[in-house]
Amino acid sequence: MRILLTVAELRAARSELLQRDATATLGLVPTMGALHDGHLALVRAAKERCRFVAVSIFVNPLQFGPSEDFSHYPRTFDQDCTLLLKEGVDLVFAPAAEELVPAHATTFIQVGGIGDRLDGKSRPGHFRGVTTIVGKLFHVVAPHAAFFGQKDAAQVAVLRAMVRDLNFDLDLVVCPTVREPDGLALSSRNRYLSAEERIHALALSRALQSIASMSVQEKDARVLQEHLRSCLAAAEGIRLDYAEVVDPRTLEAITTMHKGALVAVAAYVGKTRLIDNIVLPSGNTP
Amino acid sequence: MRILLTVAELRAARSELLQRDATATLGLVPTMGALHDGHLALVRAAKERCRFVAVSIFVNPLQFGPSEDFSHYPRTFDQDCTLLLKEGVDLVFAPAAEELVPAHATTFIQVGGIGDRLDGKSRPGHFRGVTTIVGKLFHVVAPHAAFFGQKDAAQVAVLRAMVRDLNFDLDLVVCPTVREPDGLALSSRNRYLSAEERIHALALSRALQSIASMSVQEKDARVLQEHLRSCLAAAEGIRLDYAEVVDPRTLEAITTMHKGALVAVAAYVGKTRLIDNIVLPSGNTP
Repeated sequence: MRILLTVAELRAARSELLQRDATATLGLVPTMGALHDGHLALVRAAKERCRFVAVSIFVNPLQFGPSEDFSHYPRTFDQDCTLLLKEGVDLVFAPAAEELVPAHATTFIQVGGIGDRLDGKSRPGHFRGVTTIVGKLFHVVAPHAAFFGQKDAAQVAVLRAMVRDLNFDLDLVVCPTVREPDGLALSSRNRYLSAEERIHALALSRALQSIASMSVQEKDARVLQEHLRSCLAAAEGIRLDYAEVVDPRTLEAITTMHKGALVAVAAYVGKTRLIDNIVLPSGNTP
Repeated sequence: MRILLTVAELRAARSELLQRDATATLGLVPTMGALHDGHLALVRAAKERCRFVAVSIFVNPLQFGPSEDFSHYPRTFDQDCTLLLKEGVDLVFAPAAEELVPAHATTFIQVGGIGDRLDGKSRPGHFRGVTTIVGKLFHVVAPHAAFFGQKDAAQVAVLRAMVRDLNFDLDLVVCPTVREPDGLALSSRNRYLSAEERIHALALSRALQSIASMSVQEKDARVLQEHLRSCLAAAEGIRLDYAEVVDPRTLEAITTMHKGALVAVAAYVGKTRLIDNIVLPSGNTP
């Protein structure tokens, strides 16, 4: 496994890897580090599908708001590398902030509409930061496929739109959310939770599970959304950010449930903002 | 020479071309058609530098304002293809508007700062349209080098910033402005000019030539800029849009002339908006 710190190093290592075999494919798993089993599931999906796998570790300053947790976002580089080595990853791209976000840069990639919904609404500028950096990573790593977690459902919708609208020549592969045995969706931010908050946080997956059960009978999306909000409003230690039933591609509210409807929530548990979602009627329930 | 109308066709043709020789390079000349010798100089530069050459012909709706000349922009596809065939071009990419700008697309590439200066100031949204489509062309054609004319000096600055900021993996090659014997910079929009307007239009290159001479002695950029504006204000049949002395990379006003300072003008001759520029103290004077 090679660890590359600059764009030039990464490109050289990529060329070296792929020139051995002109038909070989490269998969990219973009991460912000602080790796957990959700990330490792993405790496395994990439290994299964591609000959070589690159993982980027970059805490992207552009996707954090001024009052958000950029400065204390968990950074566990050595542990991350140990995990990735065990998974048989080929390249780790870990640039410094200035390498990918130099002071002079003024260019952004922005997805209108979709990028302003759900987390894009709660976190203005967030998705512009995500799409700009993911676009740069696509240009630097030039992967044949890139792997993202369904846990970040809004991010998935925004990146799908970006790849389609800008004709990026790669497959975007979305992998199911990985959960703790009790239902909590894995997140690097779970590290922030106290033991008590960890218990409170279960309200998110529980509320989604309740909606999943209810949706077998109830097809009015607004009724389900109201129920979801009530569940979370009643939950101890939870401050709701959003709870919505939307089309998974456009992130626009729907009125009648249809196959693949996205039920997405974001809430604060103490100071920690968590997100979770399910796709209904089938698939990946908590 | 193959003419490709869709992204899928272009990609297939590109693969076929490059698989013959793994070390071969592909040059891209993006155009809006209505080709003239300026475009052909770009094609020749691309032929010289790259094994294969692709030319895109696409009148980009995103770079025209609502009151601009999108609908009557000259479209001379058959003549263009005849010219490109003579030049030995390998691929012509000529997608329909909906192929590159589908109704559902909401993603843009935008260069802040630089993209709002000169033509970006006069034509709000213009460079956002340029960068979005050029970015898409880069993703579709995947060239090793792309060729643009110095005549569009602000566009060159904006695209340089985009390529650098987003880590596009290609060389951006800028070729000198091609001029008529009397100094008029070649432009597809010169076709709009009446015989009388054609004479009035010479004021642009003449004013720039006058600044070039004056700059041998005068190093105060504001003095030169004032002289340029006076020349153009006094010229018959000319309505000035902008006349500025700027840094060619940032497009910001400079106060003291330095090597490579950009003197750029835009003016209406009748209803036709023309642009021209020179780089001082040396190089490509009209």
